[in-house]
Amino acid sequence: MKDKIEISMPDIELKEKALKVRKAAMKICHTSNEQRRDALNKMADSLVHYSEEILEANDHDFNVAKKKGISQSLLSRLKLSKDKLLHGIDGVRKVRDLPDPVGQVQINKKLASGLILQRKTVPIGVIGVIFESRPDAFIQISSLALRSGNAAILKGGSEANQTNEAIFNALQSGLNKSCLDENSLCLLTSRKDSMSMLHLDKDISLIIPRGSNELVKFIQSNTRIPVLGHADGICHLYIDNESNINLGIKVALDSKTQYPAACNAIETLLIHKDIAKEFLSKAIPIFDSKKIELRGDAKSVSLGVKLSADSQDWGTEYLDLILSIKIVDDLNDAIDHIQTFGSKHTDGIITENYNTASLFMNSVDSAGVFHNCSTRFADGFRYGFGAEVGISTQSLPPRGPVGLEGLVTYKYFLTGKGHIVDDFSSGKEKFIHEDL
Amino acid sequence: MKDKIEISMPDIELKEKALKVRKAAMKICHTSNEQRRDALNKMADSLVHYSEEILEANDHDFNVAKKKGISQSLLSRLKLSKDKLLHGIDGVRKVRDLPDPVGQVQINKKLASGLILQRKTVPIGVIGVIFESRPDAFIQISSLALRSGNAAILKGGSEANQTNEAIFNALQSGLNKSCLDENSLCLLTSRKDSMSMLHLDKDISLIIPRGSNELVKFIQSNTRIPVLGHADGICHLYIDNESNINLGIKVALDSKTQYPAACNAIETLLIHKDIAKEFLSKAIPIFDSKKIELRGDAKSVSLGVKLSADSQDWGTEYLDLILSIKIVDDLNDAIDHIQTFGSKHTDGIITENYNTASLFMNSVDSAGVFHNCSTRFADGFRYGFGAEVGISTQSLPPRGPVGLEGLVTYKYFLTGKGHIVDDFSSGKEKFIHEDL
Repeated sequence: MKDKIEISMPDIELKEKALKVRKAAMKICHTSNEQRRDALNKMADSLVHYSEEILEANDHDFNVAKKKGISQSLLSRLKLSKDKLLHGIDGVRKVRDLPDPVGQVQINKKLASGLILQRKTVPIGVIGVIFESRPDAFIQISSLALRSGNAAILKGGSEANQTNEAIFNALQSGLNKSCLDENSLCLLTSRKDSMSMLHLDKDISLIIPRGSNELVKFIQSNTRIPVLGHADGICHLYIDNESNINLGIKVALDSKTQYPAACNAIETLLIHKDIAKEFLSKAIPIFDSKKIELRGDAKSVSLGVKLSADSQDWGTEYLDLILSIKIVDDLNDAIDHIQTFGSKHTDGIITENYNTASLFMNSVDSAGVFHNCSTRFADGFRYGFGAEVGISTQSLPPRGPVGLEGLVTYKYFLTGKGHIVDDFSSGKEKFIHEDL
Repeated sequence: MKDKIEISMPDIELKEKALKVRKAAMKICHTSNEQRRDALNKMADSLVHYSEEILEANDHDFNVAKKKGISQSLLSRLKLSKDKLLHGIDGVRKVRDLPDPVGQVQINKKLASGLILQRKTVPIGVIGVIFESRPDAFIQISSLALRSGNAAILKGGSEANQTNEAIFNALQSGLNKSCLDENSLCLLTSRKDSMSMLHLDKDISLIIPRGSNELVKFIQSNTRIPVLGHADGICHLYIDNESNINLGIKVALDSKTQYPAACNAIETLLIHKDIAKEFLSKAIPIFDSKKIELRGDAKSVSLGVKLSADSQDWGTEYLDLILSIKIVDDLNDAIDHIQTFGSKHTDGIITENYNTASLFMNSVDSAGVFHNCSTRFADGFRYGFGAEVGISTQSLPPRGPVGLEGLVTYKYFLTGKGHIVDDFSSGKEKFIHEDL
């Protein structure tokens, strides 16, 4: 992927488009919760109205892509069935009904008589979205961006161009019936533009990539704009010596097999040396029956794991029914392994010892630290956020599964009556710093 | 500055140092509030104990720097008087007394029976600090980092090497008496290391630069690690047509002159055309009496401003008693100017019209939006945070003046009893999502 893409500087046309979106973003800031809810409603209605056109465009894209011989997995992500579209439209109405993330007062403080400081959540501004193939992601992310008062510049995969244009026309037609500026959404269709977008750090405040690890890595390495997302999801489960073996096997199975292609599936099982023999003798037949390919270190091979893991395995996200296994000396050894090979996504421990669990959870520097449950729970919907913008593996917030609140930031509003700092320096006035 | 520095990859020695700090960071995570308070106390005591050595080392650095002919402003930042040192030590005790930012529960939710999700604040990990000259900044940032449960790798200006080493020895000696790992702080003394540090994105989670705009810009452009700080502080004050002129002049004066070298001082005054004549006829003599050099656009020159501003002026942070002046057509014109030339730091409006103020504050995308008060209030201490790590002009949090809370992040702790996702997919279990 890196070889295929050249990043050219944004041309005048793109800059003008971006400026329009930025100006639209300045208008959405002022809209009320009700106005944004209404816009989403009208977008959903419009998607219903234009659904035949959208499905026809998708048929066209799908047939062209098929003739070109693109991969089956890409084809299935590209395909927008009527059900998938209706599900997407339903998603818009669900996002409409989420609580407003904008205007939350986080700090409300009297600095001095008549001098009031407020910190309130505000939209981020313009969000740049780059996604591969999936037209349903276009619908979802557009509604999330507008719901949170942001404008968005979107670039979908070129193989979905006609579908995306049909969806975009439907969304804009809905927007036109609402009081939101139609330039709140902008669709880019050329690959050149999508990459030039990475240079628009004056206009775009956040990039959300939706696609392969390679796409995310490429974007992270080629922009100064913050990127919300994650490249790898190398998750671990550690089986402590004081664990319930049946519970451990059950959780390991779910963490690996419930949806192996997900970023929150585990890739490596770490097992305490004192329990390894007993655990593996029970687990291997069960893993085998679920067609999981096991790749073990020397010790676990000596305990019955058939294939040997090599040094590559510990840093590989299989996205498949493959699981690497390592026997560790103790908790610290397990934590060291995770810190070295993990991707700060989600890591779990199985233990009956509360102190060990607590030590693990405090030490492991991942967005999610789990005790006696499947790593597959690391998900915005399962966490109860109602929507998921993505999962971030950055150290700084927002991290982990990010809901609508990841699409707002905050700013400080200070209101006075002619207050000047000199009066405080001279001692004429004094700070109160009283919470209101 | 850019020409002088070459960024080499970290050598083995630096990597080993960084690993030690990272391991120390994993230990501090577990320390209690009292343990971290105690460590700060012992660090303060130790600084008192070694104060003569520190002051002697500083004398040496100062004399060497003076002979080398470094600038007066650098010399004055380098000089550590006894008073400055005592003030710094007092600062450590003040940071000790700030509320613990770690372990704050932000989300506490029952996902299902026995499956509990908590989001709690946690230390970020390892903080990289790069600062120029000021040895007092070394003391301050070390105490802030440890107070919030982080470890820190610090690099000071080479002209302060002996001072920094003396301070470092004192701090480590204090740490040794506490239960914190002495590797929680690490001092780098070679310039090569300080820049290689920018490549340590596996070990360092946040960079805090303390120094010139050039230093900050250089760092921002040369690392993938998040940088907390700001390069420019180009702040504006807009005088609306419905403003109280005397109040406007008073606030403008304070915003410009109270400390012109500060990042929150204004550089540009924007004046509504309908009030420009009256405002300037009153303001110019007062600005003149305060020795402020005014540089105006054509319209304001025609109204009495002596010097003409050129296109460079609108994007320049003078850090001096210079103020550029522009007459704007209306509120939107003012906002456009700020969006084009501002640095998202702090921008204010003077108006008696509440709606205009509200429109301005919602539209201007800066960390601080102020109404009828001086931009100089944009400061962690004045906001009542008790400490200031820096001021961030990023769009995403933390932004604006950042207190201790900017040195923590959060993670998700999920505790179950063998819960697996498959049971929820199959309908055997149902999510509750109940706030606790």
